[in-house]
Amino acid sequence: MFSLVAIAIVLAPSPIVDAVQYEPNWDSLDSRPLPSWYDEGKIGIFIHWGVFSVPSFSSEWFWYHWQGAKQWPSVIEFMKKNYPPNWTYADFAEQFDPPTGIYDPHHWADIFNASGARYVVQVTKHHEGFTSWPSNYSFNWNAQDVGPHRDLVGDLAVAVRRYPNLRYGIYHSLFEWFNPVYLEDKKNKYKTQNFVFNKSLPELYELVNTYKPDVIWSDGCPGKDTYWNSTHFLAWLYNESPVKDTVVTNDRWGRNVVCKHGGFLTCTDQFNPGTLQKRKFENAMKLDYSSWGYRRDMKLSDVIPIQNLLRKIATTISCNGNILINVGPTKDGTIAPIFEERLRQMGSWLQVNGEAVYKSRPWTFQNDTVTPGVWYTQRTNETTTSNKNVYAFVFDWPAVTLVLGSPVPSSTTQVTLLGYKRQFKFSQRSGGGMIINIPAIPYKKIPCDWLWVFKITNPQN
Amino acid sequence: MFSLVAIAIVLAPSPIVDAVQYEPNWDSLDSRPLPSWYDEGKIGIFIHWGVFSVPSFSSEWFWYHWQGAKQWPSVIEFMKKNYPPNWTYADFAEQFDPPTGIYDPHHWADIFNASGARYVVQVTKHHEGFTSWPSNYSFNWNAQDVGPHRDLVGDLAVAVRRYPNLRYGIYHSLFEWFNPVYLEDKKNKYKTQNFVFNKSLPELYELVNTYKPDVIWSDGCPGKDTYWNSTHFLAWLYNESPVKDTVVTNDRWGRNVVCKHGGFLTCTDQFNPGTLQKRKFENAMKLDYSSWGYRRDMKLSDVIPIQNLLRKIATTISCNGNILINVGPTKDGTIAPIFEERLRQMGSWLQVNGEAVYKSRPWTFQNDTVTPGVWYTQRTNETTTSNKNVYAFVFDWPAVTLVLGSPVPSSTTQVTLLGYKRQFKFSQRSGGGMIINIPAIPYKKIPCDWLWVFKITNPQN
Amino acid sequence: MFSLVAIAIVLAPSPIVDAVQYEPNWDSLDSRPLPSWYDEGKIGIFIHWGVFSVPSFSSEWFWYHWQGAKQWPSVIEFMKKNYPPNWTYADFAEQFDPPTGIYDPHHWADIFNASGARYVVQVTKHHEGFTSWPSNYSFNWNAQDVGPHRDLVGDLAVAVRRYPNLRYGIYHSLFEWFNPVYLEDKKNKYKTQNFVFNKSLPELYELVNTYKPDVIWSDGCPGKDTYWNSTHFLAWLYNESPVKDTVVTNDRWGRNVVCKHGGFLTCTDQFNPGTLQKRKFENAMKLDYSSWGYRRDMKLSDVIPIQNLLRKIATTISCNGNILINVGPTKDGTIAPIFEERLRQMGSWLQVNGEAVYKSRPWTFQNDTVTPGVWYTQRTNETTTSNKNVYAFVFDWPAVTLVLGSPVPSSTTQVTLLGYKRQFKFSQRSGGGMIINIPAIPYKKIPCDWLWVFKITNPQN
Amino acid sequence: MFSLVAIAIVLAPSPIVDAVQYEPNWDSLDSRPLPSWYDEGKIGIFIHWGVFSVPSFSSEWFWYHWQGAKQWPSVIEFMKKNYPPNWTYADFAEQFDPPTGIYDPHHWADIFNASGARYVVQVTKHHEGFTSWPSNYSFNWNAQDVGPHRDLVGDLAVAVRRYPNLRYGIYHSLFEWFNPVYLEDKKNKYKTQNFVFNKSLPELYELVNTYKPDVIWSDGCPGKDTYWNSTHFLAWLYNESPVKDTVVTNDRWGRNVVCKHGGFLTCTDQFNPGTLQKRKFENAMKLDYSSWGYRRDMKLSDVIPIQNLLRKIATTISCNGNILINVGPTKDGTIAPIFEERLRQMGSWLQVNGEAVYKSRPWTFQNDTVTPGVWYTQRTNETTTSNKNVYAFVFDWPAVTLVLGSPVPSSTTQVTLLGYKRQFKFSQRSGGGMIINIPAIPYKKIPCDWLWVFKITNPQN
Repeated sequence: MFSLVAIAIVLAPSPIVDAVQYEPNWDSLDSRPLPSWYDEGKIGIFIHWGVFSVPSFSSEWFWYHWQGAKQWPSVIEFMKKNYPPNWTYADFAEQFDPPTGIYDPHHWADIFNASGARYVVQVTKHHEGFTSWPSNYSFNWNAQDVGPHRDLVGDLAVAVRRYPNLRYGIYHSLFEWFNPVYLEDKKNKYKTQNFVFNKSLPELYELVNTYKPDVIWSDGCPGKDTYWNSTHFLAWLYNESPVKDTVVTNDRWGRNVVCKHGGFLTCTDQFNPGTLQKRKFENAMKLDYSSWGYRRDMKLSDVIPIQNLLRKIATTISCNGNILINVGPTKDGTIAPIFEERLRQMGSWLQVNGEAVYKSRPWTFQNDTVTPGVWYTQRTNETTTSNKNVYAFVFDWPAVTLVLGSPVPSSTTQVTLLGYKRQFKFSQRSGGGMIINIPAIPYKKIPCDWLWVFKITNPQN
Repeated sequence: MFSLVAIAIVLAPSPIVDAVQYEPNWDSLDSRPLPSWYDEGKIGIFIHWGVFSVPSFSSEWFWYHWQGAKQWPSVIEFMKKNYPPNWTYADFAEQFDPPTGIYDPHHWADIFNASGARYVVQVTKHHEGFTSWPSNYSFNWNAQDVGPHRDLVGDLAVAVRRYPNLRYGIYHSLFEWFNPVYLEDKKNKYKTQNFVFNKSLPELYELVNTYKPDVIWSDGCPGKDTYWNSTHFLAWLYNESPVKDTVVTNDRWGRNVVCKHGGFLTCTDQFNPGTLQKRKFENAMKLDYSSWGYRRDMKLSDVIPIQNLLRKIATTISCNGNILINVGPTKDGTIAPIFEERLRQMGSWLQVNGEAVYKSRPWTFQNDTVTPGVWYTQRTNETTTSNKNVYAFVFDWPAVTLVLGSPVPSSTTQVTLLGYKRQFKFSQRSGGGMIINIPAIPYKKIPCDWLWVFKITNPQN
Repeated sequence: MFSLVAIAIVLAPSPIVDAVQYEPNWDSLDSRPLPSWYDEGKIGIFIHWGVFSVPSFSSEWFWYHWQGAKQWPSVIEFMKKNYPPNWTYADFAEQFDPPTGIYDPHHWADIFNASGARYVVQVTKHHEGFTSWPSNYSFNWNAQDVGPHRDLVGDLAVAVRRYPNLRYGIYHSLFEWFNPVYLEDKKNKYKTQNFVFNKSLPELYELVNTYKPDVIWSDGCPGKDTYWNSTHFLAWLYNESPVKDTVVTNDRWGRNVVCKHGGFLTCTDQFNPGTLQKRKFENAMKLDYSSWGYRRDMKLSDVIPIQNLLRKIATTISCNGNILINVGPTKDGTIAPIFEERLRQMGSWLQVNGEAVYKSRPWTFQNDTVTPGVWYTQRTNETTTSNKNVYAFVFDWPAVTLVLGSPVPSSTTQVTLLGYKRQFKFSQRSGGGMIINIPAIPYKKIPCDWLWVFKITNPQN
Repeated sequence: MFSLVAIAIVLAPSPIVDAVQYEPNWDSLDSRPLPSWYDEGKIGIFIHWGVFSVPSFSSEWFWYHWQGAKQWPSVIEFMKKNYPPNWTYADFAEQFDPPTGIYDPHHWADIFNASGARYVVQVTKHHEGFTSWPSNYSFNWNAQDVGPHRDLVGDLAVAVRRYPNLRYGIYHSLFEWFNPVYLEDKKNKYKTQNFVFNKSLPELYELVNTYKPDVIWSDGCPGKDTYWNSTHFLAWLYNESPVKDTVVTNDRWGRNVVCKHGGFLTCTDQFNPGTLQKRKFENAMKLDYSSWGYRRDMKLSDVIPIQNLLRKIATTISCNGNILINVGPTKDGTIAPIFEERLRQMGSWLQVNGEAVYKSRPWTFQNDTVTPGVWYTQRTNETTTSNKNVYAFVFDWPAVTLVLGSPVPSSTTQVTLLGYKRQFKFSQRSGGGMIINIPAIPYKKIPCDWLWVFKITNPQN
């Protein structure tokens, strides 16, 4: 009977003369270099916190698995056993109430900083549509109006930025499972854009202008980029926004552009290809194997061991990836101590081995050609005249020798273990590579647990 | 930085040939005759039920008196004493939960029908913005998504329409106190219309198309009619909508048109001018003197006595008004028995005296020129050859004679009391009018309590 | 395996010399005259307010009908539809929270005083076991520890006593449906008395010593008086307690003594025998036909009309009864306005007709021998020399004559209508009695609605 | 005014002929040998779970620190900031609702079993008085009637007993901070015993008869043993109860007997004397340094590192103690994964080193006379002809040699490391003791982390 059409008119201030201007098309947008801080930082923290943290069962897809297209018996049973018959998802919001005296974003930031991560990406709106900031476009379905009664985005942005090593970014879901305005657009085969112009885009502008995030991690884009008007938003973001010089974005700006266009590529969740990627990618993974949001039913066996986490870091950065490690806080506003432990373990490991991680680049070889469980990065040696160092991330402590097929030692090559003072003897390997002798190092001199990094200076390759 | 402009494109079906088409201007719109059912029905029921029914204290303006511009100490104190420090209004919504087995819209409709009212107008959205129907434009701030988990509008529309004598209408507040999209428009001095095109108008179209109401009782219009785009909506309503032949509207379509344009005039709340009005008006009044929404702190002394209610009916319809009698249901979905009693008392009175009310018209005189507390209606006698009858609503039972200055008896004039068989003797009054003898009627023959109607057939004037 | 025996040792102060001392047996206890205030007052107010006021559905027997021996489908359905599967009755207690600013015991007392009642009896503990006062014997299952967080008994006792015409009394259930200590005694065929000595008796002593009630309305006594140790408690109450001179009690002190022993008799609920009773009785009845506790599902048709209430007063006091009129407040601490209206209507009627009620005694005849719907009281005329007056409570306004078969007029007999100035003419009736002429009294001179009292001075009988 | 005296009559079945009968005095009771399973098991798990798990802030003394004699500003502030002004502790109970699908006592038991512990002691009633089982003596203040709606004691008893290695015991607080019956006894300087005979003793009998616990961990005994009637209860427990042959108890049976009489001694919380104790003791300690109950504000730094936990085990058992390791589950019925991790870490360590723990006895020396951080146990070698083995628990991995001042090697003495195959060379130490050579064992051959046990067979002393 009627239809609404909305047109976004960007009232742009006059651009600064001589600055590069990006066009709202992918060729132009993809030509923008990623700000260097991102590649250098390598490790980020992902935060999933929302109304789903109230039922805190199964996963952050609770609502969809309860009442969406794909219903899960366990979730349906959970509601049946524990709630009145006509309970709704929105009824949970009032119980999303991190208490004063328990919730402390500064403690969160302290953990994140101690973890050695270099940036934090917070879910500001998941597919449920609840905005963790007091959005003008989500009346009474946001964290200020109901539940926490706080600006959860502002809380964390301020806390994170007190640490010079940390940058703050936001995750934002374009679509919302059950928002009728979106569903109407979808029913119209995405030919109407009421949701885009009245909800998703205004939110993005509001987030950028208010919180000045250095990462925009877009998600939830069942329509095409043209539906979401993504290129226009990104052109504004790169040309005019207050974060135009520092911001990085990902690739989830339309179902047709994922893994193709944008800033870094995310492709699929937990993207860890194992081979060198031409474009920068990010491996978004989680400490709880089964859920991004906190689940009360999480057991120890669901939590990634620190050894496995470090292996994922090694394999990811060897292939040109960053890693984004997810933590789901509780509805009370706490980080489960087991997560805190994993993050601080990672931080202690990076204290020893960070040299091989931060500012590193992929090497010629990603993993060793002879010994499994050995992955490489390289880094130009900034403090000596040597050209470069290659770092071998070794998953299993070698018993007597460490045989490496990939690095070809030069006459000036030396081998050390990060965190350990002495040099290691080695010989050339017939067939290529090198054989490093591993003496019986006294137990207390082993510099770290879990995973060890050997540094090979000035290899020929 | 950016601005949103929305344009409503009405996809109108081809108009029926020869039907009157109204233009989106007041001259044209005001020329539409009110559908006759409205003037003939005279009495409607107003329902205020919303999230304000949860605190159920002070009035339906609770939120505004708590946190808006004009704060009331009693309301602030109430919150301080009874709720946690950071409670918000939206937190109340989850408690708006009329229980199954207690809330029964069919019982409501039974009461309204028994009251003798001819239409029901339900608040579908008050200034709080909570929609009592599952609106596509109020995600998670509506009665289906949170609280009642029902379509409260659909519930009542169906129940009311089971009674042939009752028509169903809706109240809708254009503005919302705290909706940031509205507040942005307001800040822009109503030069932007994001709220109108994305919220208030879509809601109105949705309500009309879904529930096909016979009344649209608009309210809450601080901007001008041009801001609200009111004339275009009304043109659509009168020309194209599914209720174009039956719908009536009021006058609250912009702060500049109240009491001037639209359908019937409401002017101010409880508008009861006491003099003949050229245009049809409606006196919206309430059973609880102090609140439209149900207040738990209501005392008996706050409830209008039946006698006073009937007097308001008489004075209103004498001057060309309809009366809209407000009932505030409890958050549990019940009509307080004291309200039920008032409505059933009114119904029993109308059983006797309805002849003087329904289908009546104002007479030459609205109230008597000699005796105070006597008000008039007239009605063409449909069953005899006489021209008309005049009805005198007498507030105080006359002791010996009833002296009326206004009606001039003709030779065929007879005087009766509605509900009583015998005729009354009368004489002409010197100076004009007539003197009716009131005998000592046995107590048990008095046809009704509270207010009595004398019928004077065929007066000369 | 073990058993507990408890012995109550009453540490009595020295009795006042010469005061009557009652023995702990019924002969002695029954010999105590009822303090005169009780018979003179005639009308009391009964208050049922407890945790049952939270579900506020069906009746105050909600718990028992839900989970006790006799389960009701409607109650079971109500729980199933509106609550989580494992909800318990005790979970309701936290929601029994009359808000500050809404609950006002002084307003209650104002209503009770205006009603013309002379005493108030409050349920301090119903069969659910929840004590409305901070009992030392109901840890965390009382109104101070959970829910209202107030001493509801103290609140009302203070408020009621501000009115000189009102006395304060308490209702107390001896047994508790689900208290395991009671159930253990019951299982032991009432041969153990752990519940009595550790719960019911300590509570009664505590109530009497703390609140000094003028009525103790005992209830819920499935065991015998010997199990409940009732005679010893009553001997203490009559001999030693702080209310020994003013207190009245009822007859529910053991299943074998109901309707036989104690103070006034209550026999069954709503006891209204219609014939003269030798012993003083009390008709405990309710404004809501279906429930003593407030039900949210109460409709107007469930509320006794004022006319019927007055008729019950007349029939009760004519036969030597007092009437105890029940009001169930809401969980919010309010008296429903419909109840307030009934009570104020009664008060306005008593303003006119109280002379025939207070301090009256049953007459020779309870109701008229000829005309149905006429009931009698008598009263010694304190202000004239005449012996006595007889009062005829007439249910239906007599059309022309009022024929009375019972009173035999004397030469000095006069007939008047309470509230109306003039005398009525009458003649002797052949066959006995008298015939009173009823003129057509002008409508506005009728002194009251609903029920009329004719006063016949100095009859021969 | 009155007083209640209760006498417990134990209806004892005829004692078995020839069984030892204990008298209700400490000489007799203390003469009972501890059932051997207890000393052999060494390690137990302590569970603190109750209504305090709902606020889950500060500690399980929340109520007392909020409203008792010693109020803590942080707790008062917490309530002020997060709850309505008149909230009470009992109001928390309804929120103690471990959801179906999340709470799983079998998972708890699995963790406890995997930890290597040999018994579990559950708090069945803390000083708050809330009984975790459906006690007949705590009507509506127990886990069946409100909150969990389950028998939490029965739940865990069943789950624990599915593991043959685990025994089930109960903790029970004799006194209750705020129970008015107790406070009355206290006010009476413990000369009345209403609380004892009607509450604490009936509960203990009920617990023993219903759940047949192998441990009774009594606590909270401000009065003397004569007030609590402790010796009579223990005589029954040892002579007649269904657990008379297996049960162990502690020493908290009266403020005058703590650390003197009973079964094992607990003396103070975290009792770890560091010197040999004549009588068996138990070191009750906790994984969260600051609280026995779960605190939502617990940080990783509040959790004991596994290394420290193992050191506490070593120092405790070296001195004749058992260790009782506390875990506070969440209100949701989960064991925090960080606690699960500590317990499973302990279990993995005991897989290697259990030989030195279970069934061990204190040795002549508790800790080494020369090297700090070395503690001893001994054990008779059951599988060889040698007399005994001494086990040295070494806290820090020795660099080159391990110098031990206490053990005097014999000619047949051998030294091994538990979990490692080869023997170690050693020499006699001048001045006594021995010097063990520590070769550079390859990193991957180190049998465990954190703490290492050297086994010295057949020492001379």
